[in-house]
Amino acid sequence: MADKRKVWKDNFTEWFHDVILGAEIIDYRYPIKGFGVWLPYGFKIRENVLRLLRKLLNDSLHDEMLFPILIPESLFEKESTHIKSFEDESFWVTHGGTTRLDVKLALRPTSETVITPMIKLWVRSHADLPRRIYQIGSVFRYETKATKPLIRIREVTTFKEAHTYHANHEEALKQVEEAINIYKQFFNEMGLPYMISKRPQWDKFAGAVSTYAFDTLFPDGKVLQIGTVHDLGQNFGKAFDVTFETKDGRKEYVWQTSYGISERVIAALITIHGDDRGLIVPPNMAPIQVVIIPIPYKEKEQDVNNVCNTIHETLDREGIRVKLDDRPELTPGSKYYEWEQHGVPLRIEIGPRDVKEKSVTFVRRDTLERARCDEEKVVEEVVELLKNIQDNLFERASTWFKDHITKTDDLKEAEEKIGVGIVEVPWCGNEECGLKIERLIETRVLGTDVETEKAINHKCLVCENKACHRVRLARAY
Amino acid sequence: MADKRKVWKDNFTEWFHDVILGAEIIDYRYPIKGFGVWLPYGFKIRENVLRLLRKLLNDSLHDEMLFPILIPESLFEKESTHIKSFEDESFWVTHGGTTRLDVKLALRPTSETVITPMIKLWVRSHADLPRRIYQIGSVFRYETKATKPLIRIREVTTFKEAHTYHANHEEALKQVEEAINIYKQFFNEMGLPYMISKRPQWDKFAGAVSTYAFDTLFPDGKVLQIGTVHDLGQNFGKAFDVTFETKDGRKEYVWQTSYGISERVIAALITIHGDDRGLIVPPNMAPIQVVIIPIPYKEKEQDVNNVCNTIHETLDREGIRVKLDDRPELTPGSKYYEWEQHGVPLRIEIGPRDVKEKSVTFVRRDTLERARCDEEKVVEEVVELLKNIQDNLFERASTWFKDHITKTDDLKEAEEKIGVGIVEVPWCGNEECGLKIERLIETRVLGTDVETEKAINHKCLVCENKACHRVRLARAY
Repeated sequence: MADKRKVWKDNFTEWFHDVILGAEIIDYRYPIKGFGVWLPYGFKIRENVLRLLRKLLNDSLHDEMLFPILIPESLFEKESTHIKSFEDESFWVTHGGTTRLDVKLALRPTSETVITPMIKLWVRSHADLPRRIYQIGSVFRYETKATKPLIRIREVTTFKEAHTYHANHEEALKQVEEAINIYKQFFNEMGLPYMISKRPQWDKFAGAVSTYAFDTLFPDGKVLQIGTVHDLGQNFGKAFDVTFETKDGRKEYVWQTSYGISERVIAALITIHGDDRGLIVPPNMAPIQVVIIPIPYKEKEQDVNNVCNTIHETLDREGIRVKLDDRPELTPGSKYYEWEQHGVPLRIEIGPRDVKEKSVTFVRRDTLERARCDEEKVVEEVVELLKNIQDNLFERASTWFKDHITKTDDLKEAEEKIGVGIVEVPWCGNEECGLKIERLIETRVLGTDVETEKAINHKCLVCENKACHRVRLARAY
Repeated sequence: MADKRKVWKDNFTEWFHDVILGAEIIDYRYPIKGFGVWLPYGFKIRENVLRLLRKLLNDSLHDEMLFPILIPESLFEKESTHIKSFEDESFWVTHGGTTRLDVKLALRPTSETVITPMIKLWVRSHADLPRRIYQIGSVFRYETKATKPLIRIREVTTFKEAHTYHANHEEALKQVEEAINIYKQFFNEMGLPYMISKRPQWDKFAGAVSTYAFDTLFPDGKVLQIGTVHDLGQNFGKAFDVTFETKDGRKEYVWQTSYGISERVIAALITIHGDDRGLIVPPNMAPIQVVIIPIPYKEKEQDVNNVCNTIHETLDREGIRVKLDDRPELTPGSKYYEWEQHGVPLRIEIGPRDVKEKSVTFVRRDTLERARCDEEKVVEEVVELLKNIQDNLFERASTWFKDHITKTDDLKEAEEKIGVGIVEVPWCGNEECGLKIERLIETRVLGTDVETEKAINHKCLVCENKACHRVRLARAY
């Protein structure tokens, strides 16, 4: 299938803004820059995304909890790398009423410094470990760069952060692997393609030993980081003096990991699957999976409505999220437009001919193809089509993603391709060469894929010494 | 059944603190006063409570949304009564990083001033009305009084606030009635007794025309307000200049209501049903409805475990929230203690005698009564018992509540009874007399019940003029 997404590709920023508001996802006209309001339809997509995420985490022995939004400065500054990175981009509460507070309070930008001191109260011995917890809520970043809906915002309203605590480094590293697997499943279910890179040392999370990140690609050729997993080593354990008694009676600092996902995944869901008509929500995540639209025709209105009602009930009984749009004041055409914009994956049209022939007409949102089937087979057909749409969206997205990755040993080609996607070039592994290439071709070093191809027979693109890995480069949000 | 709750009654504050932490509801040892951490077990109770609340609201055409946590001072101060009441008890953000912000931002204490300006963007004509929305999230109060777990806190983490918008006052008043009905259902499902009072003018919500409140009673004789419903008239509509075009083409200010519930309902759920052994969670809200405890006996361990596993699977398959506690390192007695403290409504014990006789032993958490039944009838018996426990808890609570309401025309009796419960006395309806009685017998005027008994043949307890209503008095949290 040829990709006919023109506005989507050529004028992505405009397309994105139009879809966010047109499909009633979120409204950023609130009078503080970077703060938005989730609209009912967007909120339902968010709920479906979070339901999946909660299920994956609960099934893998994570406990959901809820921690305070404010952090006293005295806690926040305990881990020195961490505070250095976050203090300038935090909002600070200084007053309660007209009273100046004794200790400034930060609106949490992330919760390592909130949770670790509580862990100190709860963990005494190796028997209290491992412990895996998560919370979903708002975090805040005082962004000074231009904000962008769902991507660079000041109140991140949908931050899922998991924090785990372990008795040794091996166990923590196994947890890092498990977290990566959980996120893989999560993105697969949403039909989002990604690559996982170990971030270079100069771009890891503040306070981490190492950071693994999931990146996806947008139509403008920029990557979006949609998930991160951190091995925190004992950095926070030491800063907060969290020790436990080992099996052989020693005191040891706790080992820690953390991993996060935000509403950026919803930005990705919208972008990766959308087209020039608007949103296409994968059936798994769709608030409405099927919309039924009656095509009335004079003197046949009642017959058409009866069939629509029957089919609505039948699908609803099967647990399919179905809506019958029987608003009499709107034409079928304007309903098509509205639900296409909102990305409902499957439309059923029922007109006098369908009634007469005991059939229904389908229109798929992804391919816009029409088909008909017998009325009595409607459930099987809907189930089959929704599955096909889900698979097709993922396939289309994956193909597009792969088509925009270029492997090259040539600096000029790298420079050309960097505007349209991801480029993989040989690298010696030195920070100096990494930073140099970031400047040379105006890019960001995403990091290396530790799982795949070494590049030992190639030369570093910068210093021409022996390369060890291919490093991934791209412009990034 | 005689009420044997001694510590609960005589030393309520201590009891409450012990249960909150002992049953792992919430941990207030976070280093900012009035900020707590929801523990996994408490979080699950919270989830069950919110699931019920969401269902009731969604079924009555409310849309869930999410609004920003911060309010620019310029918006916050638009409704003058509102800001006067809230400005001294708000937390204020003044800095982003080291930069002083141009406009101070308040952490929302409630969201009328967040939502109304957005409504102005969304509502143009009568066809856009009514509109019913709600959100669940944190609100903040800079409390200067002593804080109390779940009751008087600085981060209210579980604030459900609904806001509705209407074309005329009649419709808004009908919504007030509907909101009251929704809350009645909500509290009934949780087995919480309440009375609904129209708050006196001097104690209504800042910015409201009138406020209706749900109060319940605690063992120390104090009432706790657990829900409020406000008719806001056009006060916010005028302050924010939100108009719509009526059917006959006029401009009119929008009519508004709002209503809220917070984690105080969880404080009530814990308190109202608890006893000297700890929590008793009503089956509807229980994270674990049934706990199975094997009673091992030498050489019979395997048989006992097999039966436990079978019963666990059987109940789980029926959708009952069941847990098998097969930790080998703990004695049955310590497991009883733990799950009684956590309020699991029903315990199943299975020992060698049960295995031999193909029976199971039940212990109800509410009455601590033991019973046995055939193994093959276990599902019916569990379903029946859970229903009985649910009903019995509500009945016990309702009886206790009614027993602590005194109707009197005698000031001395009123004064005596005010320490143990609610007192209803005749009142002329004048604010002056209301405020005087608050001082005279150290109480709070809860308000009047407009539905029931007038008191026209009685004299106001203060001025001795003709009374119009009985007014309710109690000490209050």
